[in-house]
This record gives sequence, structure tokens and C-alpha cells, in this order.
Amino acid sequence: MARILGIDPGSQRTGVGLVDVDAGGRCRYVHCQALNLLQDTDDFPARLGKLVFDLEDVLSEWKPTVVAIEAVFMDKSATSALKLGHARGAAIATVVRHGLPVHEYAPRLVKQSLVGSGGAEKAQVQHMVRLLLNLGGQKLQADAADALAVALTHAHVSATAGRTGLAAALLRRRR
Amino acid sequence: MARILGIDPGSQRTGVGLVDVDAGGRCRYVHCQALNLLQDTDDFPARLGKLVFDLEDVLSEWKPTVVAIEAVFMDKSATSALKLGHARGAAIATVVRHGLPVHEYAPRLVKQSLVGSGGAEKAQVQHMVRLLLNLGGQKLQADAADALAVALTHAHVSATAGRTGLAAALLRRRR
Repeated sequence: MARILGIDPGSQRTGVGLVDVDAGGRCRYVHCQALNLLQDTDDFPARLGKLVFDLEDVLSEWKPTVVAIEAVFMDKSATSALKLGHARGAAIATVVRHGLPVHEYAPRLVKQSLVGSGGAEKAQVQHMVRLLLNLGGQKLQADAADALAVALTHAHVSATAGRTGLAAALLRRRR
Repeated sequence: MARILGIDPGSQRTGVGLVDVDAGGRCRYVHCQALNLLQDTDDFPARLGKLVFDLEDVLSEWKPTVVAIEAVFMDKSATSALKLGHARGAAIATVVRHGLPVHEYAPRLVKQSLVGSGGAEKAQVQHMVRLLLNLGGQKLQADAADALAVALTHAHVSATAGRTGLAAALLRRRR
């Protein structure tokens, strides 16, 4: 069994989501939350520091065996890219420092894997996260849901080489 | 006495430079080097990981008591901003994780502090780094020299509240 930590880094909030996947590729929801970066200070290193320590708490408490994170392709301004880069770099540094393997998945692959279309809407992705993890009507914080989505993508990609991620996962849920 | 680690992060290479400063504000060169990020892999987390571990080696070996890093204001593309942000975020995460205080200095302040003009050329800054640290004709790798420059800026700013950084530092060298 693998315990996958999905991370959705942002300069305001970083989503984390944990999913257990068994040898047969069956996924089980473990935990998700949004880590808020300090907002009430101009001390940027302190803001990143809070992310590092919060993420280390998550690593210690939930003990993931592998990490999945969305690859980013910028269409925003250089300033927002720089901020996002800092959060993402700090998050990757923290998990690498912890000795965990990190896998990157392109946003289109996450959507393709969960919804079957690389151009899917965010709401569709979150709907599939709830469906695949039996979370019913449970309200999910958006960044935490995105983190679960990339964790599920890793589960699908690792387990279903050659099969369509979603179809195979749904099939397994019905068995 | 404080031992200042200056860091000049980049997506290809990160410069590090260490300077000791005594209670009177006198600075002494300790060490500088450029840390190369892994270039021969597309595995971006691994590239950042190498930076984290190399920087941790520097922290363990040279035991700085404080860290100084240039603040960045982007005028480049979103893509290069994102790459720089990752390296900078990973470096800050690593030193914060090590329990060290981190100070940021705007590039103009570094130039102002060393050369007396916020619009100074890189070559002038490097010339002053050599002069202030008695490095004579010694060849300095460019990123390592920039790291020494921000370390010296921290020394000046901490020691010379109200005095012109360079003038005071030169004065101290002559005593």
C-alpha cells in the first residue's frame, strides 16, 4: 500500500490531500486541509517558514510514502509566477528534505485522469474527487480538493499503466 | 561577532558567500562558492533537492549566524520568474528550517551600500566586494561575488545605522 500526499501550492494557501492506494489500485480518502501562509506580515521568509513547518507537521502526522504535485505552466504575470514559485520551491524542498520521492503531473493530465478530458472545469474535477473518494456531499476547501486530485492522479497513473485512469478506478470501486 | 551568509539564488546556480563581522562592524572574508543545480535531468524536484542538500552542507560546515538574501523585483518573463522563485523558495525554506533569521535587501540597496549608487554596474559591485574583503586580484565566480555583496550589505546595515555604509566600512578598514 502507498500513502500519496498531493500538494497544490499557492502563494496564499497550499492545499494538501492524502489518499491511500492498495495493490489493486483502490483509493481511500485519508485527510485533506489547506495550509494558510502568514498574511499579516511583509516578512516573506517568515511566511514561507510557516508553510515549511506546517508541511512538516503534515509529513510527521500522516506519514505519506510518496508525494504528487501539479507541474505549472505560467500564463500569469511574472510577479505572481515568482510568488507561486517560492511557495512551490519551499514545499518541494521540504518533502525532498524528508526523503520522499516527488512526482509532477501536468494540470491537463490531472483533468484527463479524473474527468477524462484535459480541458475539464475545476468543478468537474472536484466532483470526481468526491465521487472517487466516497466523500458524498462533504464540503471540500478548493485547494485541498485540488491536492486530492493530484494524489488520485498519481494513484491512477501508478496503478493503471495502459488503462484509462478514471474508467479503471470506477471499475475497481464497483467490484 | 556575527557570521553572515549571503545567498544569491538562481535557477542555474546559487551563489553563497560568508563574511564575519565584529562588534565594530569590521568585515572579514570567510568563504564563497557557487552551488550548481543539477542540469542533466528534467526531474525538477531532484534539481531543487540538490540545492537543498548542498546548502545544508554549507550551513553545517560554515555555521553562519544570520542569512542575507536579495529581494527580487521581476522584469523578466513569467517562466524565468517561476524558475527563480523555486530556487529562492527552496533556499529560504532550507535556512528557515535550520532556525536562522533571514534578511532581504533590495538590489538597489545592495548597490547603494557597496558602491554608493543604486544604479551601479555589477562590475563595480564586484570590485568593491574584492576591495572591502581584501581579496586583491582573486578571481570570484559572479554569483558567489553577488552573495558576498548581500552579506556585506547586511553587515553595513546592521552596524552603521545612520552612517553611509561604504564610507563607514572604508573608514574602519583604515583604522
